[in-house]
Amino acid sequence: MWGIIATWCMARDGVEKATKMLKNKEKAENAVEIAIKDVEDFPYYKSVGYGGLPNEEMEVELDAAYMDGSTFNFGAVCAIKDFANPISVAKKLSKLSENNMLVSSGAEAYAHKEGFERKNMLTDRAKIHYKNRIKDIAEYELKPYSGHDTVGMVCLDVYGNMVSGTSTSGLFMKKRGRIGDSPIIGSGLYVDNEVGGASATGLGEDIMKGIISYEIVRMMETGADPQTACDRTVYNFERKMMKKRGKIGDISVVAMNNKGEWGVSTNIDNFSFVVANELSDIKIYRAKRINGKTICELASKEWIEEYMSKRMEPLEEK
Amino acid sequence: MWGIIATWCMARDGVEKATKMLKNKEKAENAVEIAIKDVEDFPYYKSVGYGGLPNEEMEVELDAAYMDGSTFNFGAVCAIKDFANPISVAKKLSKLSENNMLVSSGAEAYAHKEGFERKNMLTDRAKIHYKNRIKDIAEYELKPYSGHDTVGMVCLDVYGNMVSGTSTSGLFMKKRGRIGDSPIIGSGLYVDNEVGGASATGLGEDIMKGIISYEIVRMMETGADPQTACDRTVYNFERKMMKKRGKIGDISVVAMNNKGEWGVSTNIDNFSFVVANELSDIKIYRAKRINGKTICELASKEWIEEYMSKRMEPLEEK
Repeated sequence: MWGIIATWCMARDGVEKATKMLKNKEKAENAVEIAIKDVEDFPYYKSVGYGGLPNEEMEVELDAAYMDGSTFNFGAVCAIKDFANPISVAKKLSKLSENNMLVSSGAEAYAHKEGFERKNMLTDRAKIHYKNRIKDIAEYELKPYSGHDTVGMVCLDVYGNMVSGTSTSGLFMKKRGRIGDSPIIGSGLYVDNEVGGASATGLGEDIMKGIISYEIVRMMETGADPQTACDRTVYNFERKMMKKRGKIGDISVVAMNNKGEWGVSTNIDNFSFVVANELSDIKIYRAKRINGKTICELASKEWIEEYMSKRMEPLEEK
Repeated sequence: MWGIIATWCMARDGVEKATKMLKNKEKAENAVEIAIKDVEDFPYYKSVGYGGLPNEEMEVELDAAYMDGSTFNFGAVCAIKDFANPISVAKKLSKLSENNMLVSSGAEAYAHKEGFERKNMLTDRAKIHYKNRIKDIAEYELKPYSGHDTVGMVCLDVYGNMVSGTSTSGLFMKKRGRIGDSPIIGSGLYVDNEVGGASATGLGEDIMKGIISYEIVRMMETGADPQTACDRTVYNFERKMMKKRGKIGDISVVAMNNKGEWGVSTNIDNFSFVVANELSDIKIYRAKRINGKTICELASKEWIEEYMSKRMEPLEEK
């Protein structure tokens, strides 16, 4: 069996590439890297890689992580600037025996020495978003933060290896150096060949309070199917947060076990995701919560077209 | 009931200060901060704060985290340079609604704006350690990494509030920007007023693979006493790691539940810790594993004197 599941419709083309590789018996570690690079490289996705929205100083700071379920090897970069593919740097770091998680200029020095591609990740379009937001904040006293659509994936190859990866530009207008759950093992991602893997997207500051991805994998380890593990983890945590804080940010998760079975959960109304395995060709779903359970429906061709055209529509400075 | 438990004998004076505060009905959030600042400020501890050993570029980069068990509020700084008290910056960050985890120059910019004390954290003694290590590495082809004695604490106040905090200079000779488990919620620390808290010390790259502190708290939540939760978490994880990797780094943990009961576990032979609660005055113990269980014995006066004198003995450049 092989399989792959990824957060958000934006992962579609990447997952398609990965699916071809997995069918050809390529390894999960390469499939995940190729799939996430595809999302990082596409300039119209505002929350990952090239074209990602900047921090409050108009710098694009990127986070990514990679975890190997056979060895627990992991690598992560946090607040790295001006490298084309943070996921590839994270993957390379996972091969080291120590120093697997590097931040900021340290991550950049490592990536530079290893010869990773330099790239100015701030696009003209992202600059317009930034300038417009500055005006909006001044005029309407808007809360500056929004947008946290991390791409996160879990992948199983025909050899039974599982890999998880994440990549994000983080909160739009975040403070310099802010990191969320995406590069954090246990919160943004977790994977164990003996069980399965999970990855999260949403408000990182809240996902980190619940160690969401680890908890999903742990529940699967005790016998829960992926869908039950996802819903139970997200909604249990939501109850705890409501009791303690009276509020919770957006949280959506994807999971796959080592049989290629998958599950998702969300506390929002419009969580899209992409999934494929040996039994079922690539599909895009939309998920929402109904009566305390996450319900998925296939995304229509029209919805997908609108998703893309909305992201690519002309943008003008206000 | 009040109580406090902390990793390593070096926390003794800090815990003594905290104990006085807790007896006087002061809050856990202040007691933990004062106790950790005491360790950060002492120049002879090589692994925390002032006097901490530098990275491979001879820079002292510090990590700290703070978590509040009543709200799940947390703050963390990673690879911050030249501020006297990382724990206080982390505590302050925990009051923000977003941007709770800041790395490197972003963390420094925040700390600067908030008026935290600047300090060159590289001592002459740390420089001698650095220079000697460089020579040793050249002569003996030593593995460059060692030393990972994070101070981590869990504290309960008479109001039932629980707080956990950590502070470290991380691996001696680490790569610039490397972070370990200490500033990571779930790995280096976790706390929930409804249950209890835990904190870890050891090889961060391995502790992060097991999300050790969260797992201990989760086990206590299902009814385990702190000692059982600590031993089961550490030794279960060790079995998993031996199966996957055939090796595991040093891991030691402390935990306290919301009744002031405590537990510890370690996979090394000489883990010291400090503990006090309403029922039992401050004590220093040494823990080691015997037949798959962690056994603690009171540290003798001689052992404590030797611990201190070893850290403060004259040091000469080779």
